[in-house]
Amino acid sequence: MVEHVIGGERTGRSGKLHVSSPYEAIQKPQGLLAIRHIRTISLEASVAARFVLSMQVSEKLTGLRAAMASENIDALIVGNTDPHNNEYVAPRWRCREWLSGMKGSSGTMVVTAKWCGLWADSRYYQTAQLALDGTEIKLMRASDLDVPSIDAWLKKHLHDDQTVAFNGHDTSLKQAKSWLKSLQPAGLKIRSELELISPIWKDRPAPPKGELFIVADEFTGQTIEEKISAVREKMAEEKLNAYLLGRTDESCWLLNFRGTDIANNPTPYCHTLVTMDEVLFFVDTDKLTTEAREKFESAGVTICDYDAIGAALKELDNTTRLLIVPNYLSYQLSQAADHCVQIEGRPIATDLKAIKNATEIKHLKQALIDDGAAMVKFYVWLYRSLKAGEKVTELSASKKLLACRAEVDGFRHVSFDSIMGYGPDGALNHYSVDETTDKPVSLESIFLIDSGGNFVHGTTDTTRTIPMGEPTQEQKDDYTTVLSSMIELIVLQFPEGATGAQLDGVCRQNLWKQGRNFKHGTGHGVGFGLEVHEGPQNISETNGERMKLGMVTTIEPGCYRPGSHGIRIENIVHTVLSQETDFGRFFKFENLTFCPINIDLIEPSLLPAEHTEWLNSYNAEVLEKLSPLLNDEELEWLERECRAL
Amino acid sequence: MVEHVIGGERTGRSGKLHVSSPYEAIQKPQGLLAIRHIRTISLEASVAARFVLSMQVSEKLTGLRAAMASENIDALIVGNTDPHNNEYVAPRWRCREWLSGMKGSSGTMVVTAKWCGLWADSRYYQTAQLALDGTEIKLMRASDLDVPSIDAWLKKHLHDDQTVAFNGHDTSLKQAKSWLKSLQPAGLKIRSELELISPIWKDRPAPPKGELFIVADEFTGQTIEEKISAVREKMAEEKLNAYLLGRTDESCWLLNFRGTDIANNPTPYCHTLVTMDEVLFFVDTDKLTTEAREKFESAGVTICDYDAIGAALKELDNTTRLLIVPNYLSYQLSQAADHCVQIEGRPIATDLKAIKNATEIKHLKQALIDDGAAMVKFYVWLYRSLKAGEKVTELSASKKLLACRAEVDGFRHVSFDSIMGYGPDGALNHYSVDETTDKPVSLESIFLIDSGGNFVHGTTDTTRTIPMGEPTQEQKDDYTTVLSSMIELIVLQFPEGATGAQLDGVCRQNLWKQGRNFKHGTGHGVGFGLEVHEGPQNISETNGERMKLGMVTTIEPGCYRPGSHGIRIENIVHTVLSQETDFGRFFKFENLTFCPINIDLIEPSLLPAEHTEWLNSYNAEVLEKLSPLLNDEELEWLERECRAL
Repeated sequence: MVEHVIGGERTGRSGKLHVSSPYEAIQKPQGLLAIRHIRTISLEASVAARFVLSMQVSEKLTGLRAAMASENIDALIVGNTDPHNNEYVAPRWRCREWLSGMKGSSGTMVVTAKWCGLWADSRYYQTAQLALDGTEIKLMRASDLDVPSIDAWLKKHLHDDQTVAFNGHDTSLKQAKSWLKSLQPAGLKIRSELELISPIWKDRPAPPKGELFIVADEFTGQTIEEKISAVREKMAEEKLNAYLLGRTDESCWLLNFRGTDIANNPTPYCHTLVTMDEVLFFVDTDKLTTEAREKFESAGVTICDYDAIGAALKELDNTTRLLIVPNYLSYQLSQAADHCVQIEGRPIATDLKAIKNATEIKHLKQALIDDGAAMVKFYVWLYRSLKAGEKVTELSASKKLLACRAEVDGFRHVSFDSIMGYGPDGALNHYSVDETTDKPVSLESIFLIDSGGNFVHGTTDTTRTIPMGEPTQEQKDDYTTVLSSMIELIVLQFPEGATGAQLDGVCRQNLWKQGRNFKHGTGHGVGFGLEVHEGPQNISETNGERMKLGMVTTIEPGCYRPGSHGIRIENIVHTVLSQETDFGRFFKFENLTFCPINIDLIEPSLLPAEHTEWLNSYNAEVLEKLSPLLNDEELEWLERECRAL
Repeated sequence: MVEHVIGGERTGRSGKLHVSSPYEAIQKPQGLLAIRHIRTISLEASVAARFVLSMQVSEKLTGLRAAMASENIDALIVGNTDPHNNEYVAPRWRCREWLSGMKGSSGTMVVTAKWCGLWADSRYYQTAQLALDGTEIKLMRASDLDVPSIDAWLKKHLHDDQTVAFNGHDTSLKQAKSWLKSLQPAGLKIRSELELISPIWKDRPAPPKGELFIVADEFTGQTIEEKISAVREKMAEEKLNAYLLGRTDESCWLLNFRGTDIANNPTPYCHTLVTMDEVLFFVDTDKLTTEAREKFESAGVTICDYDAIGAALKELDNTTRLLIVPNYLSYQLSQAADHCVQIEGRPIATDLKAIKNATEIKHLKQALIDDGAAMVKFYVWLYRSLKAGEKVTELSASKKLLACRAEVDGFRHVSFDSIMGYGPDGALNHYSVDETTDKPVSLESIFLIDSGGNFVHGTTDTTRTIPMGEPTQEQKDDYTTVLSSMIELIVLQFPEGATGAQLDGVCRQNLWKQGRNFKHGTGHGVGFGLEVHEGPQNISETNGERMKLGMVTTIEPGCYRPGSHGIRIENIVHTVLSQETDFGRFFKFENLTFCPINIDLIEPSLLPAEHTEWLNSYNAEVLEKLSPLLNDEELEWLERECRAL
């Protein structure tokens, strides 16, 4: 699944827009084609719904401005961020979404007494414009060069001694520091401790209470005790006394559990504080099963209430050398530990977690074979249904694909909302199908399918683009260039120490030579039964992280022609040793994804011989690995699909 | 000329080691081969010289420790840095060199009452070891993973409330902040205002007084007034009231002058402070010719004494929004402006300077043709002399090459000390030949020559590796792979926004595939008649700067086999528009260097057809462009050298 990385910072979010009421549906459509669909809603209903919406926004803003005035706040920044700066945020923390009506994970509002704007990046321009239409909220097109950043806007429109507020509980230390550094020298005052939204958000959802469950050691390959030891070893090297694991997937990894707080996401709200003789796990204890409680206690982990983290930090001795990761920690929590010696260092758990152990790799390989077979079953259903004249839409296809994955032993949920982009929808990077955007699939254009499962034995993420009819020459040229780009990186040998940005250039060069490019990252780390986007490594234009042995990463170049089609091909790879020479150690990628790569879309003259050879060998291996999991019909289809080019 | 970039930071320095006394000569040798040469110095002389040296070091350390004790300093950090963090430093600021006897631009000492260490990176291990032998100074091999950094060492060996000092006048704000951020939380106190070295360095050189001269507008393409306007326009965009140009080449660019303070370097010690209505130029006024003074005054520039900069900063109003660049400004000067609103932003002058205008490009093209002809004249002399049985050494070759360049109209000085690496010396990245390392050149191995000139019409920097006898297969394979790597990048089309790190990966991939690599940057920006290493762009593993139209950059991959040979090939290129497609603007490199690329060293089976085609076309253009500047003998040689492969 594509990840957006801007200036080295991950900005990618799923873009999933949950639809739960009629007027919200209007805001959902993304992309050019989506707009067409609005027309299927009757004009009166649409106007009525919009009126309701704009009234609601107006009412909320009035309430908020009164609260701001009573605290002498001149400008308030409102985002959709949670206390962990998680990629996926529970409904409780979607403040900007509640206030503006604009869904989508990215976007931040600024409210003053007389003005209100919402900064959205280019992926969300259409979504935001549709949502904000009829309200007083001005869309600030944040990706445009002539649009000021939030802090630049505040500095321009506020004068000395005016006060800006943001909620420090839900804002990362990194973001907060960036605003403080910019705004304070300009004479603006900052308040971060106020809770202005809650009092007026009457039906604000409570924090989720999803059950938390243990992952067996046979899957994790490392016990909780072993992981705690490994973390403490790193802490000792850095002379740290304490380490606050802020990102929720870090706690999941350390304590071998998963959660169910957020749909399609395995990381529940929690914190872990590791010292040299204690491990304090902060979680809503209602979430704990007896098994989990026993497992934690037997590993020496002390269970504390989620809200007790602030007090625990305050109690730390003032000589404590506390590791914090500004991007994973809220500003308010960092303030609670202000008396400590705060060391801003690398996230130890994230770094350890990124290096998959042999057990994890063994299971992940099986998960990707199971996942590949599920995809093949889906393909066979898709082509059979369409040839039989049955109606298939992007949404029904998505449901069928989920059903195929759900057959796999160990399936928990999809690892992200499937991107099912038929024809022009394939050109929308964050296309997410639902009732309002759903379109029929036919035997004409090409179909981009980006999907994955979260299994007990690993997280998968595969993209394939398949022909539904006779492809155009442009489609074939685009497809072949994208395929060649992916293979270029899979067959590359690179030295220990090579960075994500270096690898990114190697992958894109074939597209560049033909005047093509794509505007998302080339690849991202993948969690083991955890989040589908995981650091520290990624493959993108400014990423300086070095690829290490054992890292699991996607390679997913693409090519998108708005209004026509989109192409992306994505495999998961694993960094392994290639050779050692006079010049040092060299690494390479071992392919882990086994799902056929279609050859009917290939323009053979554009695929170098070395790449054709790799492809033929790859498809032969796919056939060999998936065959035992297929019935006769599926096997017959796969044999044809995997024939040599 | 190779530039070393570690973690995105430029660390490259020329590595030139001036030899001025007998005992210093002993410290000069670099590399395995160099050690052999020490044996030519008689054993007694060597021992005697080393004894004198170690006595001197001991005496200096005793004096320094007494000074430290009187100020209650527990550890002192001593570097070779100047108030501008310049790449080339005048003798006055070579404090570490004076104290330790160890030459070379890189390396920092820590002195405590009972211990003394010198942190040097791997390029300087041999030089440092030779220099420190017999002294109490311990070599800290800073590139080794198990060696602590300076701040880590201090935190380990000093206890709470002890005091560390460094000279804040000669330390960049960036470096100082990094030490403060690391050492203060560990309880250590910091002093930065003390001048401990000067009182005991009795014959410390005075600041240089090299004359400063104006470059005519016909070469710069922009008047001083136009440049000041361009700077102020950027300042207005960023709402800045004042901008301190800290790096000396920024002042040279802005005010269209060059200097002669430092050998082979055109940037004299100076500062410029630009406000919206004043330009204050801080320089030792003895350096000014009447022409320069008149030119500055007519452009509205106020001339101030070099030392008045601190007072001028102190006088700024406390509402002044002052742009500072922490890497280009001393810690003490930043403290002098502590009352201002300090904005740490991009270096405006560096960014503007990097985009060469049409006049600069026109002149640079001519400079590179003149320089190429000088190289050809040198080659012809080299082969003729050797074939005639005359003695040629690396040093005599270097002198001859200088003489050939000096014939060019507009020649000022070499742009860096030529790297003349015959045989195994070619494997030493920073090899600098002088009397102590000089070796004969013969018609056997291969010869790496990296050199350039600073001309009034541009700065050049070219590396060629040429065969002196029959090359080995390994040499041919290495050479062809390096050549192919350079061509790969020269023929690449890349999108607007591509970063140095992405391009770096594309360049290195052919070497990687064969288990080869090189440990320096792939390319660096080049000044116009200014420094040979210039930012902001470079092509290296973690560089996130984006390549812009008009930038001038080197491409110089290499391959080094210690004890055997080294290969590097380097051209200068210019970023130009290639095409505009549905996917945006694409750029490419226009080659600017015209110097034959030898084909006898090529293994044809390793050079792709597209690269062979580029090479043949390149050498044909070299022949065409240089022919008018050559005599019959030279032309005959060049015709053969430029024959098609």
